[in-house]
Amino acid sequence: MDTKKIGQQTVCFASPPSIAGFGNAVGKKEGQGPLASYFDCVGKDDTFGEKSWEKAETAMQKKALNYALEKAGVTPKELDYIFAGDLLNQCIATSYSLRAQDVPFFGLYGACSTMAESLSLGAMLLDGGFGNYVAALTSSHFCSAERQYRNPLEYGSQKPPTAQWTATGSGAIILAKSGKGPYITHVTTGKVTDKGITDANNMGAAMAPAAYSTLQAHFQDTGRKPGFYDCIVTGDLGSLGKEIVIDFFRRDGVDLTKNYDDCGCLLFNADAQDVHAGGSGCGCSAVVLTGYLLRQMQEGKLKHLLFCGTGALHSPTSTMQGESIPGICHAVAITTEKKGGGK
Amino acid sequence: MDTKKIGQQTVCFASPPSIAGFGNAVGKKEGQGPLASYFDCVGKDDTFGEKSWEKAETAMQKKALNYALEKAGVTPKELDYIFAGDLLNQCIATSYSLRAQDVPFFGLYGACSTMAESLSLGAMLLDGGFGNYVAALTSSHFCSAERQYRNPLEYGSQKPPTAQWTATGSGAIILAKSGKGPYITHVTTGKVTDKGITDANNMGAAMAPAAYSTLQAHFQDTGRKPGFYDCIVTGDLGSLGKEIVIDFFRRDGVDLTKNYDDCGCLLFNADAQDVHAGGSGCGCSAVVLTGYLLRQMQEGKLKHLLFCGTGALHSPTSTMQGESIPGICHAVAITTEKKGGGK
Repeated sequence: MDTKKIGQQTVCFASPPSIAGFGNAVGKKEGQGPLASYFDCVGKDDTFGEKSWEKAETAMQKKALNYALEKAGVTPKELDYIFAGDLLNQCIATSYSLRAQDVPFFGLYGACSTMAESLSLGAMLLDGGFGNYVAALTSSHFCSAERQYRNPLEYGSQKPPTAQWTATGSGAIILAKSGKGPYITHVTTGKVTDKGITDANNMGAAMAPAAYSTLQAHFQDTGRKPGFYDCIVTGDLGSLGKEIVIDFFRRDGVDLTKNYDDCGCLLFNADAQDVHAGGSGCGCSAVVLTGYLLRQMQEGKLKHLLFCGTGALHSPTSTMQGESIPGICHAVAITTEKKGGGK
Repeated sequence: MDTKKIGQQTVCFASPPSIAGFGNAVGKKEGQGPLASYFDCVGKDDTFGEKSWEKAETAMQKKALNYALEKAGVTPKELDYIFAGDLLNQCIATSYSLRAQDVPFFGLYGACSTMAESLSLGAMLLDGGFGNYVAALTSSHFCSAERQYRNPLEYGSQKPPTAQWTATGSGAIILAKSGKGPYITHVTTGKVTDKGITDANNMGAAMAPAAYSTLQAHFQDTGRKPGFYDCIVTGDLGSLGKEIVIDFFRRDGVDLTKNYDDCGCLLFNADAQDVHAGGSGCGCSAVVLTGYLLRQMQEGKLKHLLFCGTGALHSPTSTMQGESIPGICHAVAITTEKKGGGK
């Protein structure tokens, strides 16, 4: 084979890229949740001074990227590539935020898996020798997502308890070819997985099989057991999808309850914040990673993290045409140890 | 620096990946154009036996990918990654076509630049040592695009002469780590470029500055003159955008008229087919490349090709909010010569 692939889906880096900086900006509700103190910027309202929700999302992206660049001590000019995308039709939050940047850009669409997808590709390009610095960037906004995917906010329409709450937030990460870590050691790239769920108000159930499939592949390809990780997070399956993943592994005789959680469950206080099954949206896992998780790593509280971005690859049109919801999950292994690579 | 980058935007491959196979499927109108004889499959109507235009687009993708795999002599199981995307909201043509494939998948959104973007990333991953085979896949469909971006077909709404006609077609390319070529030697990755054009019926003008910028960067980074290439194509600026690019270079004292064309101009017969300024859509440059251009290379009629995918990164929402149209262009240098690399 003579590639860096170990198994069909996993890559093991020869020179694990370093996370040089990370930043984020979140909305008011996210700033009232349990992770409030971890964010770089909490909006007073969700407009971020802009006239539309879409422009507010763009404004958040700019803030998140600037915080990440600043903390990494990297100028935009030094970036070799930006990988970015969002949930809006034609990913406009991203293209409008990157108008301000004079940097080569690869646009992605991975729904809520975008942060994991952009980290995967960014790390592969750095390890492949194609540059020194790469940025990974994504966002979502509750109001722009409601308008686009569901109903105008003014309707005040109700949702079933299985529905998730699109997070208002943007996260950015600067990867460096070398540095003091944490390091990305492996990426396991997901396949489109569709088990026939057609309820767009139950995306946790639609995405859980993809998460299970990618996690399985990761453990098989790397030879690692789930217990190797201090923390395994999916993002964002919500409380229901999380239970499904735990159930799937339980059937295999694996107990995932000790070190597994979901970004959709971490971001909000389920009892007090009325978010139904939990958070979702590209921004959710991005801000939990760039807010809470990477800070825990910096503070030495987490050593080995498996970050698994999950996305539902449907659209309102496909739902109206009776299609089921395809899911995908990309896993990124992050460690604070210098020698993280190797099978 | 110690990277494979030459200049800020261009990568030069140490081991130029080989184009092992390519395939396509097009609609009825495309099959009546000047390139008709080059396509693998021309639909009798534009439904491809499906009940919706979106599903027809998915069906075309499956056909194109199957032709490409067959011609490359590669099974889906051998693919390390698929890079794909399309124009539909949330890229559903792609996610639904890839439900049928058991292959790691990276979703892209690059509007009409998607084929160039997917080839760029696919080639980088192969040269970086992350696999042996990668597929690049994209599509567009006139009817699904009209419904989503403009008006229902039944309205029969008119367009100004600067408007382009979204091509119905899908193209796929299989890249191999090694093989008998043609080879991808360089990729020049574009930046988001916005010169303030707000007319969504004049996307050629909106994208032309991005094409000019990437072409300039390519020539500067590689030290190549435009005359090095037997053929430089953009895709898809249409007749107006093409003239703008020629004008920009003329101002620099460079004559691009001898070896430059645009996929939007090549796909249709402008006089007889009533496509206004020419073809557009992810499928347009994808089928011109996988139909006409790569066959010309196979037959020895073209040696050095610079394929420049151009995309307009706006949405109906951003247009309605008064935003201008950001453009992007990614250039991919393809050659039939074994030793194509090097500055």
